[in-house]
Amino acid sequence: MRILIIGAAGMVGRRLAERLIADGKLGDDRIDTIHAFDVIEPALASANGVRIEAQAGNIADAQTVNGLIASKPDIVFHLAAIVSGEAEVEFEKGYDVNMDGTRHLLEAIRHVGTGYRPRLVFTSSIAVFGAPFPERIDDEFLRAPLTSYGTQKAVGELLLADYTRKGFVDGIGIRLPTIVVRPGKPNKAASGFFSGIIREPLAGQEAILPVSEDVRHWVASPDAAVGFLLHAGTMDLAQFGDRRSLTMPGLSVTVAEMIDALRRVAGDEVVARIKRAHDPQIAAIVDGWPRDFSARRAEEAGFRADKDFDSIIRAHIADEEARKRAG
Amino acid sequence: MRILIIGAAGMVGRRLAERLIADGKLGDDRIDTIHAFDVIEPALASANGVRIEAQAGNIADAQTVNGLIASKPDIVFHLAAIVSGEAEVEFEKGYDVNMDGTRHLLEAIRHVGTGYRPRLVFTSSIAVFGAPFPERIDDEFLRAPLTSYGTQKAVGELLLADYTRKGFVDGIGIRLPTIVVRPGKPNKAASGFFSGIIREPLAGQEAILPVSEDVRHWVASPDAAVGFLLHAGTMDLAQFGDRRSLTMPGLSVTVAEMIDALRRVAGDEVVARIKRAHDPQIAAIVDGWPRDFSARRAEEAGFRADKDFDSIIRAHIADEEARKRAG
Repeated sequence: MRILIIGAAGMVGRRLAERLIADGKLGDDRIDTIHAFDVIEPALASANGVRIEAQAGNIADAQTVNGLIASKPDIVFHLAAIVSGEAEVEFEKGYDVNMDGTRHLLEAIRHVGTGYRPRLVFTSSIAVFGAPFPERIDDEFLRAPLTSYGTQKAVGELLLADYTRKGFVDGIGIRLPTIVVRPGKPNKAASGFFSGIIREPLAGQEAILPVSEDVRHWVASPDAAVGFLLHAGTMDLAQFGDRRSLTMPGLSVTVAEMIDALRRVAGDEVVARIKRAHDPQIAAIVDGWPRDFSARRAEEAGFRADKDFDSIIRAHIADEEARKRAG
Repeated sequence: MRILIIGAAGMVGRRLAERLIADGKLGDDRIDTIHAFDVIEPALASANGVRIEAQAGNIADAQTVNGLIASKPDIVFHLAAIVSGEAEVEFEKGYDVNMDGTRHLLEAIRHVGTGYRPRLVFTSSIAVFGAPFPERIDDEFLRAPLTSYGTQKAVGELLLADYTRKGFVDGIGIRLPTIVVRPGKPNKAASGFFSGIIREPLAGQEAILPVSEDVRHWVASPDAAVGFLLHAGTMDLAQFGDRRSLTMPGLSVTVAEMIDALRRVAGDEVVARIKRAHDPQIAAIVDGWPRDFSARRAEEAGFRADKDFDSIIRAHIADEEARKRAG
């Protein structure tokens, strides 16, 4: 089978590609080729009989997207996006990539015609929801985004559902929780501290906690995210009927609970590297974010959240050790 | 003030234009010009100092839409759409007009820049909702359309909210109930019989009732629809915050209640012209439609439904008599 990954150089996309290469198959089907696409050419090595075709480009360009679909991939994982903060500042860029890019993809698939109906896994976001919301958001809660990014993802979900209903594609939209622990350097994202307060102390560095410890958030590990994508890529989607976008299961944890888990896994000395420095701006942004979800539909369909936050921390430690060994 | 009506040759658009011309003003402001646009050139006569600029064209063309906005209307009423049945059959045409046309309009307004922020009244539809739904749909119910038309309207609502939030436009989306009694000839729309069973018997003709009398539907009169548009065009929208699309109030009535009202207003002889001929196809379509809404947000903001179905019938009779007098 041939798999196209759009956004294969990103944190989750790269991890998905590496997992598929390591497995050599998806479900029961052997993978012949992974077409790895991103704005920068993804660096992936062929292995286990999986051929890699790496390509750099921009999905805002319809011809580029037509080219991606010309080789008729059996499955498309669409993870590419201008992220929330950038889409808010760069209005046109956000719409060009997040909305038009997704539409170009759907249109390219539709125009192949003659029975071509690939599986399309679209990574959406809990940003499709906007305040005011209940303490716990269920599968029936309305999409009323408060960012351009959330708007573009919500439009993507609507188009995905309509193109699926019309039989052009077999689509599923999965709304990922905030991914914790993100590997790598600290970034400027308002959500960055959720990873930072775990990652930096474990690496022997100080981390700043800009909000109070009772802040509650909805998280999943990078491994859980890859698990969602693989399950979405292979499962029978007919059970979802016409509502094809689902909130993925996650853990609803407070910062205090995250810190307690870090203490259990790594000890007091590590936890002592977390410094409190209240940042009213970040606190205000985080205050507008959803805290908890009931992801019943996804759970009933076999999507699995992380077991607990301790496991997330342990998996991160194992990843970092593997990374060091690989040099 | 200058008013642009897109879709001014349609049933509601034309009625809105005629009302604005008759009033000569909107709210406290004298109307200088009504720019009346549709796929066919709207036939409207200047009066009361209101100049009419009539134009034919297609909002699927971005340059045409830029031209409409170049003269910087103070208020834009956007009623143009490929209707539900046609958008379902003509997939591209529906997206071109209903989704791209609306986006062209928002983009044209954004590109004027320099403080231009007109009021935009967007006519949406209860087709943004799809089954399964509760017996009564409230303002918090999710948008999960089951038609391409409903999808395109839902996307329009999302874009309207985001462009409003970003300060490019002062937008409001109003979801109209099914308009009853539509004047004119019977049409092939699945909802056509709701008007037909009133209009034809009053005109001395037979009408077919293809569903059972316990079918319940959500309706408003043409006058109520014009009232919604005028109110949306003049009211303060800040009260709605970031959720800028509202279900308009209507009457939830069964076919039996409609027929009872017709009997009270026009007598048994008129009602006897309704012939039962069950049509399983139409019955199945209507079965998937919403039956009742709680339009609390709109009601609290001063939008007013018709008093009762008797009034709707009487208003239709008065309209028809006025039409005959006018020749």
